[in-house]
Amino acid sequence: MIFPSSLLENAVNEFARLPGIGKKTALRLVLHLIKQDPASVQQFSDTIAKMRSDLRFCRNCYNIADGDFCNICSDRSRKRDTICVVENIRDVIAIESTGQFNGTYHVLGGVVSPLDGVGPDQLPIGDLVRRVREDEAREVIFALSPTIQGDTTMFYIQKQLEPFPITITTIARGISFGGELEYTDELTLARSLSGRLPVGQYVGRNS
Amino acid sequence: MIFPSSLLENAVNEFARLPGIGKKTALRLVLHLIKQDPASVQQFSDTIAKMRSDLRFCRNCYNIADGDFCNICSDRSRKRDTICVVENIRDVIAIESTGQFNGTYHVLGGVVSPLDGVGPDQLPIGDLVRRVREDEAREVIFALSPTIQGDTTMFYIQKQLEPFPITITTIARGISFGGELEYTDELTLARSLSGRLPVGQYVGRNS
Repeated sequence: MIFPSSLLENAVNEFARLPGIGKKTALRLVLHLIKQDPASVQQFSDTIAKMRSDLRFCRNCYNIADGDFCNICSDRSRKRDTICVVENIRDVIAIESTGQFNGTYHVLGGVVSPLDGVGPDQLPIGDLVRRVREDEAREVIFALSPTIQGDTTMFYIQKQLEPFPITITTIARGISFGGELEYTDELTLARSLSGRLPVGQYVGRNS
Repeated sequence: MIFPSSLLENAVNEFARLPGIGKKTALRLVLHLIKQDPASVQQFSDTIAKMRSDLRFCRNCYNIADGDFCNICSDRSRKRDTICVVENIRDVIAIESTGQFNGTYHVLGGVVSPLDGVGPDQLPIGDLVRRVREDEAREVIFALSPTIQGDTTMFYIQKQLEPFPITITTIARGISFGGELEYTDELTLARSLSGRLPVGQYVGRNS
């Protein structure tokens, strides 16, 4: 792509470095910004810069925070004795959006993956164990991806939590609502079968 | 979507205002930026802000420019007597990328479209006529989209250029290379037929 201006080219190159954004999309975004008034582009730019420079990670759960602690850990109404272990911040946002969870989180920032050179020592598992002890946790819920790495991480952490008198659970796997039985992969269908519930316990879509 | 931090939320909202970027994509981009070092995010932000504040439009052809004139109009080796009329800057970049054009451009910034309230007076057509006169143009090439609006614009401008002893052409319409005859729409196929060339003039893919 040949650019008529180096200012344009630099801006396109910056956008094109973002994941999933190619040169053509980057150009479209930049040409859109050119049409906006300078103040709103300045605001866009300032917001991004401020986000990166001011954003911190919660000292308790490693979630994103505006200050020392995230607004979930700062919220007195959240149960500190129920800790949901997730891989990343996106998972926190997804679970929060259900409005069904009133405990706290522990964001690992990754999963154990020897092939990628990520061992358990690089994840804040010791901090989780400390929280379980100090907050007198009653339940740790694993909400990790159902992959080999996710399962490995879950079993490793479970071992570390064995000394504590807590309930350790993992979120249910099964056929999603709206999913068709015949198009479900074998593993999901198998887990869904082995994890079958008495119909009396089943809480359906319309309940 | 419920965010754990207002800094994060603001940044996601800014990205989500860009065309074709939804909240989920915006979140993915912001989380990517969070992982980058602060200096490179600052550079991203500065480049965008500088682009918008410093970018100007060429006083000759309305292309994007770093200074008063774009680098095509400033280039002495480009033929000023051949002017290619395009709708927008993206078209300039597309034609420049072919490496086949050594003239100059005239960027209309739109096409005549009464339904959208764009009349010929809002386009820099007077400037084009002045350039044709002052630069003693020999050829004006229309490279507008083959739409009703594009054609209307072309015929309107052609009328304005009638007093000048110049060649007025439009880029060829036809079946694209790699295009299958049977899947081509009727209009393109009809134009491709009516604009047929002697085989001797045909410059094929492998020439």
